[in-house]
Amino acid sequence: MKIAVLGYGTIGRGVYEILSNPVTDYTKKIQVSYIWIRKGKEKALPEMCDDFNIILQDKEVEVVVELLGGIEPAHTMILEALRAGKHVVTANKKVTAQYLKEFLEVAKEHHVQFLFEATTGGGIPWVRAVEKVKRIDEVSDFHGIFNGTTNYILDRMYKEGAEFDDVLKDAQQLGYAEHDPSADIDGLDIGDKLQITASLAFDCIAPNDFPIFGIRTITKNDISFFKNRGQVVKLIAQAKRSNNILSCCIEPVVFSKDSMEASVPNNFNLGSITGTTIGELKFYGQGAGMLPTANAVIQDIIDLLEEKNETAFDFSKEVEFCYDKIMKDYIIRTSLPEEKVREVFGENVGEREEYLGNYYYEILTISTKRLHDGIQQLQVYDKTVFGARIHVGTL
Amino acid sequence: MKIAVLGYGTIGRGVYEILSNPVTDYTKKIQVSYIWIRKGKEKALPEMCDDFNIILQDKEVEVVVELLGGIEPAHTMILEALRAGKHVVTANKKVTAQYLKEFLEVAKEHHVQFLFEATTGGGIPWVRAVEKVKRIDEVSDFHGIFNGTTNYILDRMYKEGAEFDDVLKDAQQLGYAEHDPSADIDGLDIGDKLQITASLAFDCIAPNDFPIFGIRTITKNDISFFKNRGQVVKLIAQAKRSNNILSCCIEPVVFSKDSMEASVPNNFNLGSITGTTIGELKFYGQGAGMLPTANAVIQDIIDLLEEKNETAFDFSKEVEFCYDKIMKDYIIRTSLPEEKVREVFGENVGEREEYLGNYYYEILTISTKRLHDGIQQLQVYDKTVFGARIHVGTL
Repeated sequence: MKIAVLGYGTIGRGVYEILSNPVTDYTKKIQVSYIWIRKGKEKALPEMCDDFNIILQDKEVEVVVELLGGIEPAHTMILEALRAGKHVVTANKKVTAQYLKEFLEVAKEHHVQFLFEATTGGGIPWVRAVEKVKRIDEVSDFHGIFNGTTNYILDRMYKEGAEFDDVLKDAQQLGYAEHDPSADIDGLDIGDKLQITASLAFDCIAPNDFPIFGIRTITKNDISFFKNRGQVVKLIAQAKRSNNILSCCIEPVVFSKDSMEASVPNNFNLGSITGTTIGELKFYGQGAGMLPTANAVIQDIIDLLEEKNETAFDFSKEVEFCYDKIMKDYIIRTSLPEEKVREVFGENVGEREEYLGNYYYEILTISTKRLHDGIQQLQVYDKTVFGARIHVGTL
Repeated sequence: MKIAVLGYGTIGRGVYEILSNPVTDYTKKIQVSYIWIRKGKEKALPEMCDDFNIILQDKEVEVVVELLGGIEPAHTMILEALRAGKHVVTANKKVTAQYLKEFLEVAKEHHVQFLFEATTGGGIPWVRAVEKVKRIDEVSDFHGIFNGTTNYILDRMYKEGAEFDDVLKDAQQLGYAEHDPSADIDGLDIGDKLQITASLAFDCIAPNDFPIFGIRTITKNDISFFKNRGQVVKLIAQAKRSNNILSCCIEPVVFSKDSMEASVPNNFNLGSITGTTIGELKFYGQGAGMLPTANAVIQDIIDLLEEKNETAFDFSKEVEFCYDKIMKDYIIRTSLPEEKVREVFGENVGEREEYLGNYYYEILTISTKRLHDGIQQLQVYDKTVFGARIHVGTL
């Protein structure tokens, strides 16, 4: 099977490396015929080509693998490939989150497939896992650690008692974090992954307006405060169904130190999904990185090679997304006076605790939306406010 | 698609329950036409039938689901079904471990499939995960907690400081452990699962003569000794490849308390697999139980419904299984005098530590086989000997 790879960044190199040194009968059957690069870039490999029309017109190319990242030209090229009767495999979470429905409709129209395992959870077979659970069960909940950078930061802060800024610098030097780390530490990177998974899990086009609160303001003191209570903080993306109401959010969550979530080390990811009859399943692995993500891309290509029947996506469900109905318990830390906290959160304020000169407030039985809104109100006066949900029993 | 279910025990009831109340398009397409029960048993449901020939001759039945357990009549009935041109799906680890090669050969000959996801890891999609890793990578290691009963016992002993016998009694009352618990606590139950997974992972017919040591002799004192060191004991099945030598074993392993393995609660299972490019993946879920196991059985049936291409099993690899080459570190507890321990383990004996009147010896840089043999020698004089491998870094 001949394929064309669009882009030769980290994942592109990984795909090329694995397929140039195949060790199995499956990978031996896949041949990289083209690597599309932008005009003006050096053609360092014989497969490189900067004319996409040549690829579109080559009838032997069955699969176009989009590894450009971002919206354009990825969006246009994916559509052109599908319309030219080629399957598309992508690792691009941004374009997939935004145009999933369009891609799947155009693919169906042209009797080809659009596959996107590598967009969420890197090397973890997460997308297929969600699809598989849905073959038998209704999904009531999924949640997980889907950002390796923040897990790396939180894990080192916990294990070494280090400060946020110091660990972030190390992460940047190791290439785990970008020069501008906002997308990771503010939880935005996970938004696309949450939207993609929620669409699959709940047969709908999930919106992306859910509450997001990251770990930018977490301190060594916060980690230590929770550690003394036998707890570990993780940045969690979650979607939950109760009756026909769906809620999604991204926020720090505090777990008991002997939970599976608390034990996820380094830059690893962990996705959990709960179905009616299967109960809870968890999937752990490298959520990023050249070879693991390339592996996920190639798994999709092998599914095409195997002519595995197209998964029937159904985005027709009428579901209501609402972030103001499910009540949870939180803890926030702020240096503002207690009356300010009470002014914002009113009767939801529980006990206050002092820890090494910082004040921690329980905010109880409150919706995600109200909590996040309240934190924003406090941030006007105290930019350092931190908040985390308290996980008790099931999430 | 019409199916026949052989046996109406726990899993049979689960399959019937899920398929009688289908919530997805997939499960709505599957119809239980027959439930085979032994002659003389009451036919409580209209689908029940005690004549297997009727099922074999019914051309509309495409899949026979074997849920009888044990070797006979399962072995004969599976072969008859395959020879009658019917796909077979089974949850029976015992017959699958012993006759996997025969079943796959006869299936191939008759252009049908033999699927066995539910044999290992219950509801966890473990068998498919191993197959999927192998589409791209060589497997260097897999290991896991594949027995829920022993994990339940070890977890409660750790969390509550309870004695083995007391927790075992509770497990028996809850139905987690059999009246005769030997198969679980002596590690024998896991043997079949290890053999099945090793055959798949390493393209060979794995033998079943590997060293097995269970948790029958573990005490409250042992758990407490390791807990004080920040460690947790789990019963682990493992297979490892180094060069062309394979080793398998089942034994208690001591993990750091903040590892993923240490965090597996209750009667859950966790399987880990490491491939060249994917790195380490872990899969967590219910390793037993009516609905999760039935779910795994139905996933296999849906794969048949989807006409997913047959997985190409290859048992042709010439590999050497050897339990005497990879060196590891252990700790054993015995009441025998130190000279007896030194007589058996010689220079491998490291430090001795006393803990609440019990003596713990490091046994260092020793092969699994020699360690297990040595424990057997000590057991002649001290039936209560306990031993566990020390996990450092990667297993």
